[in-house]
Amino acid sequence: MARDLSSALATIRSLLDPAGFVEAAEVEERYLADVRGFLAQAPLALVRPTGTEQVSKVLAACHEHDIPVAVQGGRTGLVQGQLPRTGELLLSLERMNRIECIDADGGLATVQCGVVLQTLQEQVEAAGLMFPLDLGARGSCTIGGNISTNAGGNRVIRYGMTRELVVGLEVVLADGTVLEGLTPYLKNNTGIDLKQLFIGSEGVLGVVTRAMLRLYPQPAERAVALCAADGFAQVQRVLALCRQHLAGALTSFEVMWQMYYRRAVALADTGEPLGTDHPFYVLVEASGSAGAGVHATLERTLQLALEEGALADVAIAQSHAQAEKLWKPREISVETGRTIRPTASFDISLPIARMDEFVYELQDALRALHADCHVLVFGHLGDGNLHLVAHVPEALGRGKEEVERTTYALLQRYRGSVSAEHGIGISKRDALPCSRTPAELATMRTLKRALDPRGILNPGRIVEVD
Amino acid sequence: MARDLSSALATIRSLLDPAGFVEAAEVEERYLADVRGFLAQAPLALVRPTGTEQVSKVLAACHEHDIPVAVQGGRTGLVQGQLPRTGELLLSLERMNRIECIDADGGLATVQCGVVLQTLQEQVEAAGLMFPLDLGARGSCTIGGNISTNAGGNRVIRYGMTRELVVGLEVVLADGTVLEGLTPYLKNNTGIDLKQLFIGSEGVLGVVTRAMLRLYPQPAERAVALCAADGFAQVQRVLALCRQHLAGALTSFEVMWQMYYRRAVALADTGEPLGTDHPFYVLVEASGSAGAGVHATLERTLQLALEEGALADVAIAQSHAQAEKLWKPREISVETGRTIRPTASFDISLPIARMDEFVYELQDALRALHADCHVLVFGHLGDGNLHLVAHVPEALGRGKEEVERTTYALLQRYRGSVSAEHGIGISKRDALPCSRTPAELATMRTLKRALDPRGILNPGRIVEVD
Repeated sequence: MARDLSSALATIRSLLDPAGFVEAAEVEERYLADVRGFLAQAPLALVRPTGTEQVSKVLAACHEHDIPVAVQGGRTGLVQGQLPRTGELLLSLERMNRIECIDADGGLATVQCGVVLQTLQEQVEAAGLMFPLDLGARGSCTIGGNISTNAGGNRVIRYGMTRELVVGLEVVLADGTVLEGLTPYLKNNTGIDLKQLFIGSEGVLGVVTRAMLRLYPQPAERAVALCAADGFAQVQRVLALCRQHLAGALTSFEVMWQMYYRRAVALADTGEPLGTDHPFYVLVEASGSAGAGVHATLERTLQLALEEGALADVAIAQSHAQAEKLWKPREISVETGRTIRPTASFDISLPIARMDEFVYELQDALRALHADCHVLVFGHLGDGNLHLVAHVPEALGRGKEEVERTTYALLQRYRGSVSAEHGIGISKRDALPCSRTPAELATMRTLKRALDPRGILNPGRIVEVD
Repeated sequence: MARDLSSALATIRSLLDPAGFVEAAEVEERYLADVRGFLAQAPLALVRPTGTEQVSKVLAACHEHDIPVAVQGGRTGLVQGQLPRTGELLLSLERMNRIECIDADGGLATVQCGVVLQTLQEQVEAAGLMFPLDLGARGSCTIGGNISTNAGGNRVIRYGMTRELVVGLEVVLADGTVLEGLTPYLKNNTGIDLKQLFIGSEGVLGVVTRAMLRLYPQPAERAVALCAADGFAQVQRVLALCRQHLAGALTSFEVMWQMYYRRAVALADTGEPLGTDHPFYVLVEASGSAGAGVHATLERTLQLALEEGALADVAIAQSHAQAEKLWKPREISVETGRTIRPTASFDISLPIARMDEFVYELQDALRALHADCHVLVFGHLGDGNLHLVAHVPEALGRGKEEVERTTYALLQRYRGSVSAEHGIGISKRDALPCSRTPAELATMRTLKRALDPRGILNPGRIVEVD
């Protein structure tokens, strides 16, 4: 290690308490692995600040000494953005895990960025309210990561993406400047809304340190149904009926294609209430306040769909336990995907009307690569978002790369989005030009240069900047 | 006019059709006046492009020749951002008024920025859907202006600000670069979400030219009630009950303080269903799909509030006409404000729990300036947003300026926002530091310099940049 660098690291060490600085050789493997099994190189060192001021001082030192920084929350990201690369300092926010305030009257929670999503969900629930963001990684992912990646999840159709849940944001810029934006106002048109820049930009423009989040009333009633449909037009019709009759009560509209559903129910071992012979399985969840009759409305809506022939069969949960069972096959998507390893995974947005056609074309294109190449399809159909897990046969020459090239080329023809909710990070950077124009990419670089002129924050994530 | 400038204007003229370029001397007064009666100087010239390509060429020429540009939509802004200043070219988007597509299945409308809000509302309604943005200026304001100012209005509590209704955005940068961001996806985490930069930044970073907007199902049922409350704690309790029981169906929660209500009902001439002796009048609107029982739920909720003593009296509209009548006093706020001219107007966000205390303190502080100084208070209380119109007695020395100084100083102590929905423009620029820190203002300048290095777009609006 060069003398300058080791003296800079000594300076950084001096800014933190003993538990706040871990030497390269001592960094545990969990900081370096993602859920897909990718393992990163050891970083220069690991720093674990406990508060905003420490983050600010550490970044100011990194800025001064030109030390690149990898920012890490709960490490559940799927695009390798959170893993350190050679020569980077690893900044973990895991010790900034304080829920500072739950203001039930104001409907706001103030938290440090390292709070685990599920912890917040539970504390808010104990206070009689709900923080609606919910996703499979809830037990590990952190609020800072949710914000930096603009996380989606299972309730977007009703409550929006993470962006719509952020009321105020505190951010530390690359040079250590703290932007204090923890204002509690839903309406605050006081110039450029800076917080929007840091939501979903994967830590390349600043480090989210604290947030003020929007809370909602707990729905008193929750109704869940699993439906079987015999064609995609029927699925679309059911969605239209749900939107029309459930309106604001529609909380989830998830669809599983047959091949996914079969593998998932087998794995879930929670029974097959509707068999496994239908081409599509739809999970509908509605929620609302007491007396809003959400259960009855859902039942009536699905009854209509049955009478019209849009649905072939329906199972409505009669208890919380039954609801969990119906959700299970959808919940275990990561595990289900693993059953066909090795795989290539995709998280795309498409016009709903063209999804069926896209999936057919994709299946054909992948089969043309190799007869064993097939794809599991499921996702948040009501939001226009599908997840795809393609099996990559060992026999396939350039393997994963070829599957990705084929899929993104097709997606580009459909003008789809190469990332609906997982972000770009490192692993989807090459696909980004399928969804963004050269002018858009150039503007992203302009913003990066303006806010992080030395390029120290999460370098190489999203776009490369000279 | 300098030779360089006149040759540059000749170039710009050549980019447009004859109706697209109006000489300084020929510019009609309507382009120069705002609704509060402020009259601007004549601009260098008026340009009226019909499409994005023309906007791009005009801006490229202005960028090249360092010509500052004032961007104008429907001219209903209340902070003078839309009025040309000395030496500026006036860019009106009024001819870009095409509704390009209403996709009922996808729930999306694609429009040019000059479309008038009410025109869009009506066309969308004819297609069986709803564009939920709604505000008093609906008959004149344009979508581009709504987006550039992140307009709020009467239904924010249910549908969010304009930001939450924008799915895709096409923007022309200062140098003429077109950012084509008309993607139809609610979920699209493909790098920095550039469109967020241009929503609410009042045209200082780019010119919004086209947008893809989110449409909602038309609520089949709409229930409106006017309520009287005898104390602010009671108003808060009614809001809590409405949130709890109406949840996602709560569409508006507007409050009028007595002094405002008395003047407004007198002006509205629609009767006084609850008298005028209560300290607070609350307008509640709920809406939902057929069979959701919105009317019954609202009735039951307000009945509860009456039984608890939170409400003193309630009138529930039994017809559309009655609903309009109940809304009228709230709708005519501009006219009501005019009855106490000369005035100073404010549009603030505050924690709801502290609003009552703030209003009392403000009344005292204004009376201390002058015995005749009083203030009308009303607004979107459910969003934390109040509008204040203060009478400025002629006898008051430095008049309006002193009223503003007093009000903003108090607001800063409450850590309120100096602009909830109207924006900053020119007229609130001096108040901006009450709500934004020096670091935030510096970051706004950094962004302005990065995206508009020659400072030609709406210069001096929001912040001055050297």
